[in-house]
Amino acid sequence: MASLIELICVGNELLIGKTINTNAQWLAKRIITLGLNTKRITVIGDNVDEISTALQEAIQRNPNFIITTGGLGPTFDDKTLEGIAKALKCKLETHDEALKMVREKYRQYVEEGRLETVELTPHRIKMAKLPKGAEPLFNPVGTAPGVIIKHNSIIIIALPGVPSEMKAIFEESVAPLLKRAAGNVTFFETSLYVTGIGESAVAPLIDQVMADNPYVYIKSHPKGEERIHHLELHLSTTAENSGLAKKRVSRALIQLADIIQAEGGKIKLRKMKL
Amino acid sequence: MASLIELICVGNELLIGKTINTNAQWLAKRIITLGLNTKRITVIGDNVDEISTALQEAIQRNPNFIITTGGLGPTFDDKTLEGIAKALKCKLETHDEALKMVREKYRQYVEEGRLETVELTPHRIKMAKLPKGAEPLFNPVGTAPGVIIKHNSIIIIALPGVPSEMKAIFEESVAPLLKRAAGNVTFFETSLYVTGIGESAVAPLIDQVMADNPYVYIKSHPKGEERIHHLELHLSTTAENSGLAKKRVSRALIQLADIIQAEGGKIKLRKMKL
Repeated sequence: MASLIELICVGNELLIGKTINTNAQWLAKRIITLGLNTKRITVIGDNVDEISTALQEAIQRNPNFIITTGGLGPTFDDKTLEGIAKALKCKLETHDEALKMVREKYRQYVEEGRLETVELTPHRIKMAKLPKGAEPLFNPVGTAPGVIIKHNSIIIIALPGVPSEMKAIFEESVAPLLKRAAGNVTFFETSLYVTGIGESAVAPLIDQVMADNPYVYIKSHPKGEERIHHLELHLSTTAENSGLAKKRVSRALIQLADIIQAEGGKIKLRKMKL
Repeated sequence: MASLIELICVGNELLIGKTINTNAQWLAKRIITLGLNTKRITVIGDNVDEISTALQEAIQRNPNFIITTGGLGPTFDDKTLEGIAKALKCKLETHDEALKMVREKYRQYVEEGRLETVELTPHRIKMAKLPKGAEPLFNPVGTAPGVIIKHNSIIIIALPGVPSEMKAIFEESVAPLLKRAAGNVTFFETSLYVTGIGESAVAPLIDQVMADNPYVYIKSHPKGEERIHHLELHLSTTAENSGLAKKRVSRALIQLADIIQAEGGKIKLRKMKL
C-alpha cells in the first residue's frame, strides 16, 4: 500500500480563476513518480478558519503526509501558519533558526543592492513565526522558509505558493523524505492512441483487459472535439520495482492494442517510454 | 452576500498530475465574473465512495450550488452519477429524455459516417442513468448529457470533464441560472505592477489601503524569481453594480499607487480594464 498524501492549496487567486493551479499538478506528478499517491487536493481561500477546517478534515482522513502550498509570505493575507496553528491547537512562536534564515536573506538582498534595509519589521518577522514544534525548511530561492511539523503519525509540510520557491524547497527537503516513505515502490505509465472506434465501444474492451490485469489502471481520455474518433488510453501501475511495473503495463498494452484492432480500431501510436 | 459555489473535480488524471485542472480555473473565473463566489475546490479520484463523501461534506457546508466536473462518460471509471446517487441516498434510473439525447447523438454520428451502429449498448445507456429526481442538460458538443438535481436548497450540477463539453453545457444551461442567482452583483478587478520595493515593505501599505477601503481586496503576487523586485498587486471587489465596483477599485488603486511611490516604489504599469 503506497503512502497517501493530501494537498491543500491556499489562495484566493485560485478561487477567482486568476491563477491556474500548476502547483497541484506539479506536486501530484512528482508524488506519483516518487511512488506515493495523492488522494485528494483541496483549494481554499486566504482565511484562517478555512485553512484550519480543511486541515482538520484532512487530518481526520489520516494520510501519511499533508502538503500545503501558498500563504507563507509577509503580507496580511499569508495565513497558512496561523491556520495550521489553529488546527493543531498550538501557538505561533518566533523560531530562532527560521528568523536567522529570514535575516540572512535580507542581509543578502541588501548586499546585492536590491534592498536598502535589513531591519526586521513585523511583516518580515511574521515569516519566522512557526506553529510550536515546527521546524523551518530552507528556501534556496526566496525569503519565506517552508515549514514541517509532525502531528500524531502525520507529517504536515507547508510550502510557499511562488512556484520556483515551492519546487526548490520540495526538491531539497521534501522529495528525500517522500522517497524514503515510498521505499522501492515505483510508478510506470504509458499511452496508446486510438482512432476509428468510439469511447463507448472501447469501454467494454477496457473492462476486459483490466479484469485480466488487476494491477494496471486504464483510463480513456477523449481528445478535443472529436470525442468519437480520437482516444488516448492511459495505462499505469505502481509496483515494487520498475521492471515489474513495466512488465505489467506492457502485457496490458499489447492485449489492449490487439483487442482494439480486432474490433476495427486503429492504433495511431504506441508510445512506450522505456 | 454573494451566492456560494463549491467545485468538485473528479478524475485520477488530476491526482497523478497527468492533466492540469484548467476546468476549475475556467469555472472559477466564469463564476466570479457572473457575480458569485467559489468557496472551495475539491479534487478526488474516480471512486464512488470518494465522490459520495466529498459531495456529502460539501452539502454539509451548505453552499448555493455544487458543480462537479468529470466522470459522466461511458467507461467503467465514469462514476460521478453513481457517487451523487450514493450521497443523496437515491437510485440511478434510466431517464427517458436523457436516453433520447444519447440515442439522438449516436444516430447523428452514424449519419455522419463516424460510427457504424446506433445500438444502445449498456455502456451507452449508462450515460442516461441519472439519480432519481435529476434532469439532463443538453450537451451541444459531445454525447454524455450534463445533470442537474436539487437537494434541499442546494442545486447540484454535474458537467463532463472534456473541457469543450463542460464549457458548452455551462454556457447554455448553467450560466443563465447562476446569473439569476447573482442578481445585479458584479465583480471588478485590476492590477498594479510595482518595482523597486519589496513585498515585505509593501505589506504594511496594503494593510493601510485596505483598512481605508473595506470593500476592496488587495493581494500581492511576487513575480518569478525576482521576489524582491517585481510585484503584481491585484485589486478586486464585488458590488451591486459595475459603476460602484469600478469606483471602489479606482479609489483604492490611486491611494495605493501614491503611497507606494512615496515609499520609493515605481509603478511599472497602471493597467485598468474599463
